Amino acid sequence: MARLSTGIMELNKKLQGGIPEGECILIAGEPGTGKTIMGMQFLYNACKEGKKCALIATEETPEKIMIHAKALGFDLEPFVENNQLSMIRFLEMRAYDVDEEYNSNYMQIDDISNLIHMMQDDIDVIVLDNLGTFSIGVDLKEFRDKVDMLAYLLSKQKRTSIITIDATAHELTHKIAEYSTYGTIRLMVKENPYTGKMERFMYIPKMRGTKLSMELIGYDITEEGIKLSPPKTNK
Amino acid sequence: MARLSTGIMELNKKLQGGIPEGECILIAGEPGTGKTIMGMQFLYNACKEGKKCALIATEETPEKIMIHAKALGFDLEPFVENNQLSMIRFLEMRAYDVDEEYNSNYMQIDDISNLIHMMQDDIDVIVLDNLGTFSIGVDLKEFRDKVDMLAYLLSKQKRTSIITIDATAHELTHKIAEYSTYGTIRLMVKENPYTGKMERFMYIPKMRGTKLSMELIGYDITEEGIKLSPPKTNK
Amino acid sequence: MARLSTGIMELNKKLQGGIPEGECILIAGEPGTGKTIMGMQFLYNACKEGKKCALIATEETPEKIMIHAKALGFDLEPFVENNQLSMIRFLEMRAYDVDEEYNSNYMQIDDISNLIHMMQDDIDVIVLDNLGTFSIGVDLKEFRDKVDMLAYLLSKQKRTSIITIDATAHELTHKIAEYSTYGTIRLMVKENPYTGKMERFMYIPKMRGTKLSMELIGYDITEEGIKLSPPKTNK
Amino acid sequence: MARLSTGIMELNKKLQGGIPEGECILIAGEPGTGKTIMGMQFLYNACKEGKKCALIATEETPEKIMIHAKALGFDLEPFVENNQLSMIRFLEMRAYDVDEEYNSNYMQIDDISNLIHMMQDDIDVIVLDNLGTFSIGVDLKEFRDKVDMLAYLLSKQKRTSIITIDATAHELTHKIAEYSTYGTIRLMVKENPYTGKMERFMYIPKMRGTKLSMELIGYDITEEGIKLSPPKTNK
Amino acid sequence: MARLSTGIMELNKKLQGGIPEGECILIAGEPGTGKTIMGMQFLYNACKEGKKCALIATEETPEKIMIHAKALGFDLEPFVENNQLSMIRFLEMRAYDVDEEYNSNYMQIDDISNLIHMMQDDIDVIVLDNLGTFSIGVDLKEFRDKVDMLAYLLSKQKRTSIITIDATAHELTHKIAEYSTYGTIRLMVKENPYTGKMERFMYIPKMRGTKLSMELIGYDITEEGIKLSPPKTNK
Amino acid sequence: MARLSTGIMELNKKLQGGIPEGECILIAGEPGTGKTIMGMQFLYNACKEGKKCALIATEETPEKIMIHAKALGFDLEPFVENNQLSMIRFLEMRAYDVDEEYNSNYMQIDDISNLIHMMQDDIDVIVLDNLGTFSIGVDLKEFRDKVDMLAYLLSKQKRTSIITIDATAHELTHKIAEYSTYGTIRLMVKENPYTGKMERFMYIPKMRGTKLSMELIGYDITEEGIKLSPPKTNK
Repeated sequence: MARLSTGIMELNKKLQGGIPEGECILIAGEPGTGKTIMGMQFLYNACKEGKKCALIATEETPEKIMIHAKALGFDLEPFVENNQLSMIRFLEMRAYDVDEEYNSNYMQIDDISNLIHMMQDDIDVIVLDNLGTFSIGVDLKEFRDKVDMLAYLLSKQKRTSIITIDATAHELTHKIAEYSTYGTIRLMVKENPYTGKMERFMYIPKMRGTKLSMELIGYDITEEGIKLSPPKTNK
Repeated sequence: MARLSTGIMELNKKLQGGIPEGECILIAGEPGTGKTIMGMQFLYNACKEGKKCALIATEETPEKIMIHAKALGFDLEPFVENNQLSMIRFLEMRAYDVDEEYNSNYMQIDDISNLIHMMQDDIDVIVLDNLGTFSIGVDLKEFRDKVDMLAYLLSKQKRTSIITIDATAHELTHKIAEYSTYGTIRLMVKENPYTGKMERFMYIPKMRGTKLSMELIGYDITEEGIKLSPPKTNK
Repeated sequence: MARLSTGIMELNKKLQGGIPEGECILIAGEPGTGKTIMGMQFLYNACKEGKKCALIATEETPEKIMIHAKALGFDLEPFVENNQLSMIRFLEMRAYDVDEEYNSNYMQIDDISNLIHMMQDDIDVIVLDNLGTFSIGVDLKEFRDKVDMLAYLLSKQKRTSIITIDATAHELTHKIAEYSTYGTIRLMVKENPYTGKMERFMYIPKMRGTKLSMELIGYDITEEGIKLSPPKTNK
Repeated sequence: MARLSTGIMELNKKLQGGIPEGECILIAGEPGTGKTIMGMQFLYNACKEGKKCALIATEETPEKIMIHAKALGFDLEPFVENNQLSMIRFLEMRAYDVDEEYNSNYMQIDDISNLIHMMQDDIDVIVLDNLGTFSIGVDLKEFRDKVDMLAYLLSKQKRTSIITIDATAHELTHKIAEYSTYGTIRLMVKENPYTGKMERFMYIPKMRGTKLSMELIGYDITEEGIKLSPPKTNK
Repeated sequence: MARLSTGIMELNKKLQGGIPEGECILIAGEPGTGKTIMGMQFLYNACKEGKKCALIATEETPEKIMIHAKALGFDLEPFVENNQLSMIRFLEMRAYDVDEEYNSNYMQIDDISNLIHMMQDDIDVIVLDNLGTFSIGVDLKEFRDKVDMLAYLLSKQKRTSIITIDATAHELTHKIAEYSTYGTIRLMVKENPYTGKMERFMYIPKMRGTKLSMELIGYDITEEGIKLSPPKTNK
Repeated sequence: MARLSTGIMELNKKLQGGIPEGECILIAGEPGTGKTIMGMQFLYNACKEGKKCALIATEETPEKIMIHAKALGFDLEPFVENNQLSMIRFLEMRAYDVDEEYNSNYMQIDDISNLIHMMQDDIDVIVLDNLGTFSIGVDLKEFRDKVDMLAYLLSKQKRTSIITIDATAHELTHKIAEYSTYGTIRLMVKENPYTGKMERFMYIPKMRGTKLSMELIGYDITEEGIKLSPPKTNK
């Protein structure tokens, strides 16, 4: 099975090379756990490997995301300039919409369907950050059906995708998106009772076609992005 | 009582030979616990034993399921080709439906009833993966009645069946499907406090006509499918 | 106070002879805890003692129940044949009803009232398995009133009754049926932290006119039905 | 402050003589904790002291209650015969009502108000067993207001009262009845982790005008009714 | 900052002299924790210091409250007689209202606003016991707005106030009243695991303009009212 | 990245200089955790550094806030007098509104949008205390959209902002505001099991562009405002 690098070397090893190509992976976590950084790291690597990519950012402007990514060593600008990376300006569409008049129907999850259809045929890699925006105020059955369809179409079109979802939306939808995707990575923060510090872990409950070790994988958000941390002894 | 192999040898021993023939068994678990793999393993063995089988897959395409099964050593293709195994394309029916226009009534649990009636009379073995699809947005009383009826008809027609249900749907329906089926296998993941690793267990709360040992049974998802793991000492 | 054997000798000892005659007892438990077996064991003993009995089974056919009971050594067939034991086919009535067309009013708890009135006057012993069927989708106040009335009429007519209720329905109705009945037996499964095995316990919170020991009573489901297990030391 | 014996000698000591005369006390507990027995014990003592008494039993017939009370050594019959004790047949009124036709308005908490007004002026002592019947299906604000008024009128008319409430109704009404009454006794069952037995405790969070010791008071339901148990050492 | 004695000497020390004058303080607690006693103790001291006071009691009659207060050594009668202390008969207004006909609008929180406006201009000190009465059946937003306004007006008119709220109402309104008041005192009961006794604690999460020690402060309800208890060693 | 002092020296060190300029930071906490003090400390420092500032206080009058701030050594008056600091009187607007007639629409979150647009173009720094006022009674989707838009516009206009939110509103909105802001500081109180005292901690789950240490940071509310406390040994 072909794999695409996550952009995190040690994580690739744990995934037998990376994310299965042409499949759709979910990343879930609370604020500050590095969902967006993980998406950028993946996107940067995919660009470097010559893939045609698209970023759909629902909570930040492309400019801000690019500044953050660049500060961590992932300069996305050249790829935007040579049209290898498309930025879809979702936050601005939402903000102007909300500002002018409040229209409760303006951002149905149908938009996501439209996005898929509008996207150029030659896009190989998609990062959608974050799916939670499309879940609030939507019926659970409808959300499940739409996410099933989204994952189905992305996979049928053989686009490798990372979809992030914030922990709030994930809980409110009973983690139902995990059933639709090919794999899931959960990002967590837990207090270490010995040191009183909070520590970061990722856990991969599901990645089809991949032998998983079932461990909690420690990681840090360093000045060069996400890195797996060496195993602790007193854990 | 006649038994049908689960496809997992050690598990058969714990079930006095396997699943009671002509009865309907529920498998419940979170994403990544191996519900689908367990269904494929069972189906592959039933095919090998010459049974006429059907697979109703609501979350994946038959093609993908067959690729996964084959990678684990369970090649279902020959059985599809000689018409011993029928594949019912549920996901595609759903995806096209959702894509074209959203119709909240399009997939009532009645469909399941229709499926039962449409199915060829000579089918011996059925795997339905997963029942959760039919539970969301349905009234609890209606869901219970339909599952009762489904289990009743399958058993009356003497079809041996495995029905999977995802943990989300199972919780949201208050585990009510367990009362309708002849037996239940729960698949679980728990953190081992000593090693910091997550470990897999199955627990069989109910299997009529079968003497159960009431233990938590460790298992692994290996490159050859699900295997029970040897008992731990420090547990 | 006259008592009727539970069919479990050691349990009779703990209940000063058995269940108080002419009263209505509730048995609550999760799937696989042996509610139905306990009902069959009680019914078999009542038949042997020459009582006129009736079984109302809402989740299984009389045929299946009789096969199970016979496998455990409780052969009910002779009593059915000599009209000492009446079987009321509730599951079939429900299944055909659900299959033909979905009619949300078809099984109101009023049916239970009708059953009581239709029952022959000379029935001494009733087993209703299970009450949960009548609770879902019914208003809490109505459920309480109906169960109050059911327990009141059964007791007024001096019929000794065992009513089972599944844990799901019992939780959803806030255990309210326990207030209407003369006594309650709760069947439970708990993990033993030392052995990693699940163990079965029954607890009797209430049995009017009976001195209770307040202990958790271990039991097993053996090939001869439910037996109390000898006390553990390391508990 | 004048006190009326609870009928439990050791408990009287803890309450500086008993229940404050002319006040309304709540007893809350799960099924089998002895709420009804405690009410009968209190009633029996009040009768023996020559008080004019009334019993409003919503869950059992007066006949059954009197059989139980007599078995525990509290023979209420002579007091009924000499008109010192009035029995108000609430359960029968409810059962016939439910049986004939279901009328959701038939037992509003207003009935309780009517009861108060209908009661003879010379009643000194009232036991109402149990208030929970009047809480289900009633708006929380209305329930609070009605209980406030009931406690206010009983106290204004200087009737010493014990009102029981079942734990289910008490939880569903957020324990709000405790704010309206002069005192509360909570009856509980807890597992002793050393012996594996369940043990009974009462706790008195509030009794106005009374110095309380704040302890958990162990008790047993013996063949002579409720008795406080001697203090444990290994607790 | 000027302070008004709480009537509990040791508590005054912990509050740099007492409650900030002209501000509104909330006291929250379960039944039996001494909310009312604490209000009476405060009121008695304010009267002794020559303040003009008012008591709004929603759950008891002024007569009963005065009997209780007197029994604890806080004789409020002389202050009522010389018109220094006004009693506002809220419970009676409610009880008659409920008795005659049930009118769900009769006691909106607007009443509280009216009370404020009707109150004599020269009232310095107010005790409102308890706010919970005004919260049930009211929309959360409306409750917050009304309590905000109440605290704002009381403070603008420089009236020092203690408002009690019962734990049920406080939980049901998500402790939202604590955001509107100048300070909060929470009264609690917890089981001491070593002695098996319940113990009383107060905790002061917020008192603006006051340096707080953040400790759990033990207290007793003695025959002379609330007294802080000396620090425990084995805690 | 330019930083603005938080007004708490040790905290600035942990944030690589302070709060990122031009970004919007959320401070969440229960009553008494010092949310308002932290806002005042930040505002005072911004004024001293010559920034043009605005305070929107929804729960207290500007006068009271200024008295509190001054008592802690943060005299805001000179900055109000020289028009460097604008005070927006939100509480009074609300109180009069509630007093006159209850109008459930009077304070939609739209007001916040209006505030943003009405604000002078040269405001550099904004403190909004607290956002919770705008969340109650508002649909979750609408609240998320409005907060997204607020954070987006503030950041686009390069105004450095601190927005506080009370724990009640934060929980009721599922902490959803944390996804919209650039960073979050959570203020907490926890009982120290060894000393029986409550202790204060802050935790910073997210601050984009900032290397965070992930620790729980102890702090005190001293007579000179918030100060970080030295690390404990027995924690």
